[in-house]
This record gives sequence, C-alpha cells and structure tokens, in this order.
Amino acid sequence: MRYEELTIEGRNAVIEAFRSGKTIDKLFILDGCQDGPVRTIIREAKKHDTLLQFVAKERLDQMSETGSHQGVIAYAAAYEYAEVDDILKIAEEKGEAPFLFLLDGIEDPHNLGAIIRTANLVGAHGVIIPRRRAAGLTATVAKTSAGALNYTPVAKVTNLARTIEELKQKGIWFVCADMEGTPMYDLNLKGPIGLVIGSEGEGVSRLVKESCDFIASIPMKGDIDSLNASVAAGVMAYEIVRQRQ
Amino acid sequence: MRYEELTIEGRNAVIEAFRSGKTIDKLFILDGCQDGPVRTIIREAKKHDTLLQFVAKERLDQMSETGSHQGVIAYAAAYEYAEVDDILKIAEEKGEAPFLFLLDGIEDPHNLGAIIRTANLVGAHGVIIPRRRAAGLTATVAKTSAGALNYTPVAKVTNLARTIEELKQKGIWFVCADMEGTPMYDLNLKGPIGLVIGSEGEGVSRLVKESCDFIASIPMKGDIDSLNASVAAGVMAYEIVRQRQ
Repeated sequence: MRYEELTIEGRNAVIEAFRSGKTIDKLFILDGCQDGPVRTIIREAKKHDTLLQFVAKERLDQMSETGSHQGVIAYAAAYEYAEVDDILKIAEEKGEAPFLFLLDGIEDPHNLGAIIRTANLVGAHGVIIPRRRAAGLTATVAKTSAGALNYTPVAKVTNLARTIEELKQKGIWFVCADMEGTPMYDLNLKGPIGLVIGSEGEGVSRLVKESCDFIASIPMKGDIDSLNASVAAGVMAYEIVRQRQ
Repeated sequence: MRYEELTIEGRNAVIEAFRSGKTIDKLFILDGCQDGPVRTIIREAKKHDTLLQFVAKERLDQMSETGSHQGVIAYAAAYEYAEVDDILKIAEEKGEAPFLFLLDGIEDPHNLGAIIRTANLVGAHGVIIPRRRAAGLTATVAKTSAGALNYTPVAKVTNLARTIEELKQKGIWFVCADMEGTPMYDLNLKGPIGLVIGSEGEGVSRLVKESCDFIASIPMKGDIDSLNASVAAGVMAYEIVRQRQ
C-alpha cells in the first residue's frame, strides 16, 4: 500500500524501468520462472545490485495492483540515490567539515523521512543508509521529509561498517547513540563527523558500534526505555550543532 | 480507522460509557434527533464538557463500524486525563521545579505520542493539551508513546492561554518555540518551566505566544522550513535538560 505509486508490474515495464535508469529498491519474481524476458530482468538486477526475491504466485497476486504482473513486480525508489563521494564533494564545495547521518536499520518510513528533514535543517551534507533492513526512498519518506529529499542526498551502501572504516581513513569521526555511552555533553563532537543512529527495536548493530570512535548517550530520567528514533537523531544532531557554534 | 478500538456506537453503549466515567473525546449525534435517550446523552455531554457535533445520517453511516449506531457515535479516550493540579502535585512530591509540556494544536496522533514519550524521558511532570484542535488519547497515541502514557499524565484544558496565565501566577515561566525567537542557547531555561510547542502547519497561535515569557528559536541552516513537531519538542526539551544539569 505504502509503495502504491511506485510499484512497477509486468515484464516490459520492469525492463524499461531498469533501462531508463530508475532505481529499483526491490524486485519480486515468480519462483521457477526462467524464460527470456525474466532472465533479462534478473541480469539487469544483478548488474544494479538490486535486492531480488523469488516468491510464490499467491504473494505476487496479493501485491499486484493491476492484476497483470506477469510474474514480475518491482518497487522503485521515488528519488534517486546519491553516492557517498557526492556527499563528501558537497561538504568540500561548501568549505565545511563533513557532517553525515548514518542510519543503521531504520525501517519505518516516517522516521526515515523525519530524519532526512532534520539532516537538512542542521546543515548535514547527506544521509547514508544500508541496502538491507532499511526503508527505501518511497513516496511516504518523501512526504514525511517535507521536501528535504529534494536537497539532502541519500546514499545506499552494502555494508555500513565497511563504509565507516573507509570514511575514517578520510579523517571523519563517528559517534553512535547508545544508552550505554558517555553523556553526549561530555564528548567533543566538533570537526568532521558521522552521526550513527540505530533502529528503534535493536539500536546500533554490534559491528557498526565497534567501528565508531565514540558512543554517546542521551540522558534519560523517565520510566520508559528510549526516545523515538527520529527524536533521538534530532537531539544528538543539535548537540553537534551547539558544539560547532 | 485510527479510532477503531475506541468507537462506541448506539444509545445505551454511549450512556453507559458516560456513567462508567469513561472520558469521551468527541460525540456525534444525528441531526434532528430529539428523543429521550438522545436528550440524556446530550445532558451527559454538557455535564462533562464533551465536544458535541450534530451530523447527517450519511456521515454517521460512514463512521460506523457495526452498522447500528442508532444515531449516536462517541470517540472515547484510551486513557484517562489528569488535572493540571495533579501534574503540579507530582512535581511537588518529587521536590522538583515543575517542568511541563504544553501542546498548541498537535493534531497528528503520531506526533502527540512521540512527544509524550519525550516528556517522560526528559523527566517532565506532565503534558497539557487543549480541548479543541488536538488529537485525543487514542490507541494510536498510546502505542506511539511506547508506554509513556502509563506514567506521564496528560491534562486537557479549555483555553491554553488562560491556563498559562494561571500557571504564571504560580511562578512557572513559559517558553515557546518559534522561528522568530531568540536562539535557545542564549536563553536561561532553568527553574520552573512550561515548554510550548505549536502545530506543524501554523506554529504557536498568537494568543498563546503573547502569553509566553520567552520565544526561543532552534537554529536552522537548511533549505526547508521547519522540523517535525515531535523532533522540535525533543530538541528544545533537551536544551532545557542540558541547562538544568
């Protein structure tokens, strides 16, 4: 339902989408389907490193809105993804120390949209999300971002921990939000920085956490466990803004 | 749909809800309906200062889930409301300076839930919302609050500006978030405080803004207009937390 406007069904439509350069977030193909056009689609999917899932006919029928999927349904991104290098280039052009958001497993499109909105307003240069276990740039995300998706680039990477290691080589420091960390007010968060936000349920994953330079905690004195992910991202981001002033 | 679990339909069910002390957020009655049971319901509604709306049969039919509304549909709150005095008493019992959230026209239940969640975690003593132009304590709000509604009391008042004036007499200072204000880092936000958050679309209303002691702005350097309301509430609340440390 939430992908409504971005579902592409049928063999020709999906091949056309790949060829026109559209970003396909996810591809569903009828299990056992092996004919020419389907093989072409699978080849395109591999070329673009698209997530591919073979599913039963019942599942496709359920997902289908037109009723004529011909064994192929694709979910397309509403917006184009950027590359991590594009994001660094923006910081460089502005003559600013890079300020990145990295989202580890934010699957709720409303949270993703709100975080992209915050990233724009704190002057971050871009947002990096993993290819798996993450909401894509759907229409809901675009709407919740309140227009920020038109300005703030989002890059998708295969392995968040590896991307962090690569960016550390370029002098960027990484801080992740975690309940067990040092109070954020006691950390030095100036300079080139990547802010890592984990998913609501599970927080930042172990590998990603181990890649970070700092673990920062937001002080909490209430009865419940944790802030909403987009609120936590906003609070941490503004502590960075305050320290940079 | 979002009120699903809390819609009460039919004359006896609604009378019963009132008599059992359930809080009814809103009552819809068939226009022109004047018989005994309906008059009883209207009397109860007036006694409890419940919002009452007379609507056409088509509207009721559309809202009805059971198909047998008998001309009466009520939306009940999933949680009981507190009184403003209850909230002040909690602060007093804890020996803390009052810390309140006041929400001026937050109509999105996800935002309301996320803000109640934040209020709990920053150690605020309660949340005050207006009777009109506001989401009630529906099941969606309860869910988005992640359990905070079980701990953080929410009071409903008829006139937010008047409540602010009354609370100022008790020594509480009020700060509202507005783009035109003084940067929040430059204000003294210690001591007994009420944080006023406006609606996404329209911000804080004029009368409420005029009642506030301070107008605080969150620094923004992006391309779009404003933060999500629950993110803005979180950022402002944590500036208060930081200053109080």
